[in-house]
Amino acid sequence: VSAPRIAFLGPLGTFTHASLLTLPIAEGAELIPLGNVTLAIDALRRGTADAAFVPFENSVEGAVAATLDELAGGEQLVIDQEAHLPVVFALQGRPGISLDDIKTVATHPHAEAQVRRWLMTNRPHAQVSLVGSTAGAAKAVGDGEYDAAVCPPLAGELYGLQTVAHDIADNPGAVTRFVLLTHPRAPHAATGNDRTTLVAYLAADHSGALIELLFEFATRAVNLTRIESRPTKERIGQYCFSIDCEGHIADERVGEAIAALHRVCADVRFLGSYPRRDGAQDAVPSGRADRDFSDARAWLDEIRRTGTS
Amino acid sequence: VSAPRIAFLGPLGTFTHASLLTLPIAEGAELIPLGNVTLAIDALRRGTADAAFVPFENSVEGAVAATLDELAGGEQLVIDQEAHLPVVFALQGRPGISLDDIKTVATHPHAEAQVRRWLMTNRPHAQVSLVGSTAGAAKAVGDGEYDAAVCPPLAGELYGLQTVAHDIADNPGAVTRFVLLTHPRAPHAATGNDRTTLVAYLAADHSGALIELLFEFATRAVNLTRIESRPTKERIGQYCFSIDCEGHIADERVGEAIAALHRVCADVRFLGSYPRRDGAQDAVPSGRADRDFSDARAWLDEIRRTGTS
Amino acid sequence: VSAPRIAFLGPLGTFTHASLLTLPIAEGAELIPLGNVTLAIDALRRGTADAAFVPFENSVEGAVAATLDELAGGEQLVIDQEAHLPVVFALQGRPGISLDDIKTVATHPHAEAQVRRWLMTNRPHAQVSLVGSTAGAAKAVGDGEYDAAVCPPLAGELYGLQTVAHDIADNPGAVTRFVLLTHPRAPHAATGNDRTTLVAYLAADHSGALIELLFEFATRAVNLTRIESRPTKERIGQYCFSIDCEGHIADERVGEAIAALHRVCADVRFLGSYPRRDGAQDAVPSGRADRDFSDARAWLDEIRRTGTS
Amino acid sequence: VSAPRIAFLGPLGTFTHASLLTLPIAEGAELIPLGNVTLAIDALRRGTADAAFVPFENSVEGAVAATLDELAGGEQLVIDQEAHLPVVFALQGRPGISLDDIKTVATHPHAEAQVRRWLMTNRPHAQVSLVGSTAGAAKAVGDGEYDAAVCPPLAGELYGLQTVAHDIADNPGAVTRFVLLTHPRAPHAATGNDRTTLVAYLAADHSGALIELLFEFATRAVNLTRIESRPTKERIGQYCFSIDCEGHIADERVGEAIAALHRVCADVRFLGSYPRRDGAQDAVPSGRADRDFSDARAWLDEIRRTGTS
Repeated sequence: VSAPRIAFLGPLGTFTHASLLTLPIAEGAELIPLGNVTLAIDALRRGTADAAFVPFENSVEGAVAATLDELAGGEQLVIDQEAHLPVVFALQGRPGISLDDIKTVATHPHAEAQVRRWLMTNRPHAQVSLVGSTAGAAKAVGDGEYDAAVCPPLAGELYGLQTVAHDIADNPGAVTRFVLLTHPRAPHAATGNDRTTLVAYLAADHSGALIELLFEFATRAVNLTRIESRPTKERIGQYCFSIDCEGHIADERVGEAIAALHRVCADVRFLGSYPRRDGAQDAVPSGRADRDFSDARAWLDEIRRTGTS
Repeated sequence: VSAPRIAFLGPLGTFTHASLLTLPIAEGAELIPLGNVTLAIDALRRGTADAAFVPFENSVEGAVAATLDELAGGEQLVIDQEAHLPVVFALQGRPGISLDDIKTVATHPHAEAQVRRWLMTNRPHAQVSLVGSTAGAAKAVGDGEYDAAVCPPLAGELYGLQTVAHDIADNPGAVTRFVLLTHPRAPHAATGNDRTTLVAYLAADHSGALIELLFEFATRAVNLTRIESRPTKERIGQYCFSIDCEGHIADERVGEAIAALHRVCADVRFLGSYPRRDGAQDAVPSGRADRDFSDARAWLDEIRRTGTS
Repeated sequence: VSAPRIAFLGPLGTFTHASLLTLPIAEGAELIPLGNVTLAIDALRRGTADAAFVPFENSVEGAVAATLDELAGGEQLVIDQEAHLPVVFALQGRPGISLDDIKTVATHPHAEAQVRRWLMTNRPHAQVSLVGSTAGAAKAVGDGEYDAAVCPPLAGELYGLQTVAHDIADNPGAVTRFVLLTHPRAPHAATGNDRTTLVAYLAADHSGALIELLFEFATRAVNLTRIESRPTKERIGQYCFSIDCEGHIADERVGEAIAALHRVCADVRFLGSYPRRDGAQDAVPSGRADRDFSDARAWLDEIRRTGTS
Repeated sequence: VSAPRIAFLGPLGTFTHASLLTLPIAEGAELIPLGNVTLAIDALRRGTADAAFVPFENSVEGAVAATLDELAGGEQLVIDQEAHLPVVFALQGRPGISLDDIKTVATHPHAEAQVRRWLMTNRPHAQVSLVGSTAGAAKAVGDGEYDAAVCPPLAGELYGLQTVAHDIADNPGAVTRFVLLTHPRAPHAATGNDRTTLVAYLAADHSGALIELLFEFATRAVNLTRIESRPTKERIGQYCFSIDCEGHIADERVGEAIAALHRVCADVRFLGSYPRRDGAQDAVPSGRADRDFSDARAWLDEIRRTGTS
């Protein structure tokens, strides 16, 4: 078996790259950095990669909307696993440089927005240049174009830089969620702490359509952990919904809820069931465990055959 | 095969009796009049009758609450069929008597309440006696105890009376619904215009428990045609719900809704699926036909096996 | 000020009479026994009584449906207060008679249903006669027509009978709820443990109309303690709903919910807010106290004036 | 009165700039291009601008998440008006250049993703460089750094370029929604076709919290046109919801719904009521017009005073 090829949002040294390196699957894999989310996903769809690793939520560099929209349309892909990475910005400079010597700083615009107050306080006169990625900024520092970069620690290591200041985000504690995408395949077995992702297209833009959709989850006690209305390509105001819910497609309550969506929505696209990595699932409420469903089916079958409840 | 024995709310000549005579099953059956709803249902439970025919809704003579409560507890029985009878009161007198000669009138208290204004207008000085049933009133007239009875036309015929005035209810147009009860057995095939009756016991008296129950119907677009909270025997304020819904237990949407109730309620008692006799069912809404359910199940199975939606 | 005249479901000695005597207002009042619920309510409407006291829920003698239906139509009346009475049946005989000597028993049909097993066990050969009320049965025993009556203890006392057996109901613990009706007037002040009764007429018989109605309560966290669909006079299948909810019309959450019903229903009839006598109300959930409503209104006013939230 | 100063997502020539020029308020105003959404909003908050004009939904250049997150936290701002602009990409080259001569193309990464197939088909061998904005790409072409830019037509005009190809997006028809932000002030009068924007912070991450929130809208028949769960700064998985609904804060149904949110949510931030520019609002359903609310209040007041409904 040859090593899997994993396309990711590059270049080398991005937060996406740093997160990818934490996954066992990355060991021995061929890692392919690409310039944006669309290119990484395209590589998977076109067969030049076996998987794509991209930011999904709250990302610094990747336009997360791009991920959601790529998955909502085109050939179906599924999430094989997720990863969560704390977003830690460092000020990385040329070897030997001190904070007081830094006159030029490069970084990505989103990163700049998150460290602006720190820079204004600590290097108010430095000239800040915006470039296409934090890793690109680090490379440019290595190439001698700037004195320092605001970037993930990994980027500094890759390009031989030195940490001038650690963890300089104005609002510390940010976390980005990444996903490993593959072609559809049988989901991993349920673990009891899973997440399921899907896209639902509303059949009509009538008042209450969203509520009806949410009821299909609520009546089965399936908790949503994320919902976003996304404009469809057709026209603004027409929406589909990108949804994460607790549980696994193999769980009875989740399966019945999603089958119900299939009945009442114009379309439903399954985007994977996979272990949840950011906290424990609530206990399954009374009446919604798999056993409750199979008992209820047996009970119903008996009524249908004999009239006895 | 011997003739079926059908116990009913008697005596002979009640509205229940009149309604029973409209059913094909009554032809050739042994009809057993009993003094109240409980006695009729007991006859079925104890095996001295094969079926019981009793008022269920808006009855003049039978305490309908008695029917609901008898069905909610004790050995399970099911509704085999329903019937609807217009409630027409007649003033029936001894042969030859004219309205002006009537000085004493007998009837059941509920019937009296429904013709009071007519009597006050037309025979203001007549003395009205309340007896145990309208048919009993007719019999008493036949026995010479009173001049006339307010009763169903059938009762007058049975006891040789003469109609003095037709259709004298103060509010015309009342209809009573009756049900034929049997021991549990496989429901009749679905007809496309059916009704299903059940009793649901709430697991807890928490705010919103009733709403949750109704959602299980609403999300499957199963229309309720009747709901009544009934006190349980334990204490007032603890409730079960007596419910009629559109559709047949064999319908996918109805079956799934009732199976859901089985999961979330303390108990659910099935009381039958049978052809509806009082109007047409609404069209099954989009996404809730049997075909939609089987398609959704096949779609879900494919996802669970292959990840492909 | 003259003594108030209170019509009630008689005759003397009924459960209704026994319950009425527990109310302070009955002291010094003129108590008017009438033959059925409709007559008692009519007396109030016609001005021959100032109040009417009738069974409302789970009654032995009064047809409770009659109460609900009388209140749903005709001139508006309101509940001034409620009372709950344990339903205790006694076997009351002529003075000096022993159980073994009892050969004839009189009682009301509903009462007979509730003591049938006891009678079959203890006096299997007694002849049971059904009469119009349990109190009437007691009177008839006093008149020498029967050996004993199944009736409330009060009825035995009134007619000089003796208790042969106490508390003989087959299912002990039943309670009946009674209400004192008056013409509309300003409700009593809220006590923190109140009940509000109303009738709601649905604007249309569409699927989900009931759910919409219930949501108006649920979103304001107003708990329902009773709901019954009642056929309207027009035709069976057209329904209004008779509803009890926790709280007082003066409570913000209750007032807003009922005002919402007024907006979305064809008609809403208020039947009173009064202290609840059968248990404590649940704590008002977060966000639904009066203070929360007044805060929210002030907050909204500020936005509407200045845009500041 | 001095001219208003409007900060916007620059540089000159962006889609944001093009959209801003369509607004009457831009005429005579001082327009201040800034490098990203955060800088534009900061200018308003710090008083160096009187308004900020930024992309809100489906933007090509601005990170819309940045807009949502800036508005969710920090000092409250409100939307004064919205604008919708069709997203039209042109290939703009140096004067005199023909398509066949173009060897280097500059554009913003999001724009590149949207014209990639067109470029691969029409200029497969051109080298594409990604820069910080489409307008910056146009400027760089004007400066002689590249042969052509993919940018809005306005950017080409500003920098003296020539249109080589019109409307080259792979998926035509995209529209971006922009908003003009100001400090809080009294909302414009309702027009009958308005939109209201707000952020709601859930009080607890319990299953069903989102549903409860949506019910407050649904019961008042207030249609949502957009909803997005947004991670709060505290930790991923804790959410607030960014919401657009139909109607104006001055509308009774909208005001009552938002006041209800204030009661049940941890916090609600009002972000403005303003004329909707992208389609007509659904008719206000029965029972939810302002008149219905004032009638219901008067009706409720009468009950509270006199008991009469």
